Amino acid sequence: MKITASAPGKVILFGEHAVVLGKPAIAVAVDRRVKVTIRKGKETGIINVKIPSLAVQGSINPDQGTIENDGHLKTGILHYIKGALQKTSIKRGMELEVSLDIPIGAGLGSSAAITVATLAAAARFNQQDITKEEIAETCHQVEVEVQGAASPLDTAISTYGGVIYLSKTKITPLQPARDLPLVVGYTPQPGNTGELVEGVGRKRNTYPDIINPILDSIENLTNEAREAIIQGDEKRIGELMNINQGLLDALGVNTWELSRLVYQARQAGALGSKLTGAGGGGSMIAYCPGRTREVLRELKNLENAFQVGISYKGVTYR
Amino acid sequence: MKITASAPGKVILFGEHAVVLGKPAIAVAVDRRVKVTIRKGKETGIINVKIPSLAVQGSINPDQGTIENDGHLKTGILHYIKGALQKTSIKRGMELEVSLDIPIGAGLGSSAAITVATLAAAARFNQQDITKEEIAETCHQVEVEVQGAASPLDTAISTYGGVIYLSKTKITPLQPARDLPLVVGYTPQPGNTGELVEGVGRKRNTYPDIINPILDSIENLTNEAREAIIQGDEKRIGELMNINQGLLDALGVNTWELSRLVYQARQAGALGSKLTGAGGGGSMIAYCPGRTREVLRELKNLENAFQVGISYKGVTYR
Repeated sequence: MKITASAPGKVILFGEHAVVLGKPAIAVAVDRRVKVTIRKGKETGIINVKIPSLAVQGSINPDQGTIENDGHLKTGILHYIKGALQKTSIKRGMELEVSLDIPIGAGLGSSAAITVATLAAAARFNQQDITKEEIAETCHQVEVEVQGAASPLDTAISTYGGVIYLSKTKITPLQPARDLPLVVGYTPQPGNTGELVEGVGRKRNTYPDIINPILDSIENLTNEAREAIIQGDEKRIGELMNINQGLLDALGVNTWELSRLVYQARQAGALGSKLTGAGGGGSMIAYCPGRTREVLRELKNLENAFQVGISYKGVTYR
Repeated sequence: MKITASAPGKVILFGEHAVVLGKPAIAVAVDRRVKVTIRKGKETGIINVKIPSLAVQGSINPDQGTIENDGHLKTGILHYIKGALQKTSIKRGMELEVSLDIPIGAGLGSSAAITVATLAAAARFNQQDITKEEIAETCHQVEVEVQGAASPLDTAISTYGGVIYLSKTKITPLQPARDLPLVVGYTPQPGNTGELVEGVGRKRNTYPDIINPILDSIENLTNEAREAIIQGDEKRIGELMNINQGLLDALGVNTWELSRLVYQARQAGALGSKLTGAGGGGSMIAYCPGRTREVLRELKNLENAFQVGISYKGVTYR
């Protein structure tokens, strides 16, 4: 017996950081996925986990809540897998394998996608019925438990796919008039999300009259972008991304490496480009209708870059 | 007979672009000057002008308002000199020589300083009494005539020196608690001020709900910076410069080259750094108490850079 579930990664198109402070954000599920395959294992209560692409191996005991691993750096992932497994009521012996199509720690939603795909696969393996609503909500809980705090955006977008507008905790799917051809460029070092979020909060406390108007501007541009996406107004989408990038720089989460990728992408013909996610490293996205190849070529000379489009397929069995 | 007048260049510390749209700004006269020397010449009605450092030579007929030059690219300066000369009532035969301590077209106020020093020298040469108020006001008129539009800030700061807070058209001198050790880095290509100002205005018309809060944020940070400068709060001055830089990027006047200088300066220990003036090229300033040497060394590896401090000496004869 073998069950495979997969879930897409995501990029935040507009509104990161502001979303933590009550403003809206727009995220896109991208056509790069995480696949979790579960096979029958020995009934020892121990679940063996393999992530071949990261050379990670470990074993999880969901009842005792313990993880053993090979000491590899990237075993943080195992905590999300354990959290998801603990949410399934029946734990039969399993062997679990993860295959990744997205870099981890790059702000592309790998941990949410792994959590979502793990829960979906484990539930099916245990012959439990589970709705998408339950997956999104339960996986958000797992992220909160593992990270201490988490936006519901990442797990929602991995579950439902498509383009999502999040306001407070209300999630609204958007219907874009056309695809969003994006190039993702990622810098070697990931940013520390917790520290970055804290830094923005501190700045807001120190300078409320300076930071609050910036957050208002991000709110208004995210709402403007929502319309532009629905209408397929490419030029406007790009301009708004560029403004959002400057405002993120003003909040102090930009870096030289990100700035370089952002400007190179524009020079190569991107209509807009900005950091995505927490910043301080991590990834940037360039919106490049008709210029994907040129932007990709330019960015590949500098760092790691790849092309993505919208994935309308959320979590799925296959 | 020989008269020499000199006037300082300037950098805008806070509020460029927003100042064009009615917000306040802070400018600093820097200890790099323009010197204008006038010697008796033939009474032909023609004034010969030499700018040896730029290899510019030309002749001006103030009565007929004509300029002849050697076709050199940088003869735009001659229009400011002509404008200033036309404001002096008596025009005796003169030979005029300009020596420059600041790069021109780099957003460092060279045209205002040349205009101010020329008017001061010519007035004295013609035995006219002229007050600083008259110099500042007349030279602002000259800048308006030559450029079509101009802020009174540049000519005021070149005339009075020190640190100036400009709100609407009201100019208030500030008394900083300590010096402002700045490193200026300039990029090879100047930005087109007119186009850049127009671009920001266009963006504001298209996206008022997005751009107006940015201008409000700049206003509030300029006022916060005014206090920080008066109190000598170095950390706060730096942080506010960094926020201002992001907001200028959001307005679309930043460039890849400026961003690189800005981030390199911070990495080398600057407390704050931002583009200064119109952007789109031109110059950036880094505020580096105790780290001037390190920042200078870092930036010199990339582009042209030099150190400046506040010049409390405005226009002066010498």
